[in-house]
Amino acid sequence: MRHLPALVLALLTTTPVIAADPAAVPYPQAYRSWHHVKSMVINPGHGLYDAFGGIHHLYANAAAMKGYKSGAWPDGAVIVFDLLEARSADNAITEGARKVVGVMHRDAKKYAATGGWGYEGFKGDSRSERAVGANAAAACHTCHVAQKDSAFVFSKLRP
Amino acid sequence: MRHLPALVLALLTTTPVIAADPAAVPYPQAYRSWHHVKSMVINPGHGLYDAFGGIHHLYANAAAMKGYKSGAWPDGAVIVFDLLEARSADNAITEGARKVVGVMHRDAKKYAATGGWGYEGFKGDSRSERAVGANAAAACHTCHVAQKDSAFVFSKLRP
Repeated sequence: MRHLPALVLALLTTTPVIAADPAAVPYPQAYRSWHHVKSMVINPGHGLYDAFGGIHHLYANAAAMKGYKSGAWPDGAVIVFDLLEARSADNAITEGARKVVGVMHRDAKKYAATGGWGYEGFKGDSRSERAVGANAAAACHTCHVAQKDSAFVFSKLRP
Repeated sequence: MRHLPALVLALLTTTPVIAADPAAVPYPQAYRSWHHVKSMVINPGHGLYDAFGGIHHLYANAAAMKGYKSGAWPDGAVIVFDLLEARSADNAITEGARKVVGVMHRDAKKYAATGGWGYEGFKGDSRSERAVGANAAAACHTCHVAQKDSAFVFSKLRP
């Protein structure tokens, strides 16, 4: 190592700083303590099973709760679609491993091309491995367009 | 009205104060915004179907979260077992009407006879119609005794 130029040595020993995509949807820190909106189980045979089979829970941050209640979604509203394996045994369904943490992140300007929502999916328990990336329009928004009258949000707040 | 003695008039126009049972478990106000602990579906054929069939969610207040994390449950810890109908259709299970709001309320002295937990069930969406009342020992604690090593709590916090 002592023969390497100082600059190379510095590069080797410093964590590289990669310019983050400003449009990247951030991982929803601490969403597990957000408001639980509702849940659903999608079983084999359902049209969305390949994509969303399992048991999912929706969580809303405080800004998203305003959206659920008023229909007006402020920038900063975040909805999490927390998808877990659904394990069927002994006439019960229990929660298994996490499959994906889906995110809708409201920013009317930044995500204007997809209805004001940024979409992302974080694989399993990873906070960095992204399943959607630049494909939000085709991978997510195409289906959410059907909910245009409710600001592209499928879920309703359960009492 | 003007012929009524003042005392009677006062009684008629004042909301009557009914001495509440000091051991009664209070309705868990605002539990829907508490931390969502975990969920489960109990289907026909399960041994607990008659009592708890449907989809249930467990919620914990801040004191109960300390219990889930540390194993030590402070007085004031409250766990809610929110039981909804599970509607199966089109290869999916969705949430239906609320069946009961089950409550475990920690007070080591007040509920010493049932392991330090007060138990109650509020029927459907009622905040006053009680399903357990004075029968907590037989109706609830008898089963929870199996979980003595975890302070009589069945559920574990899901990540």
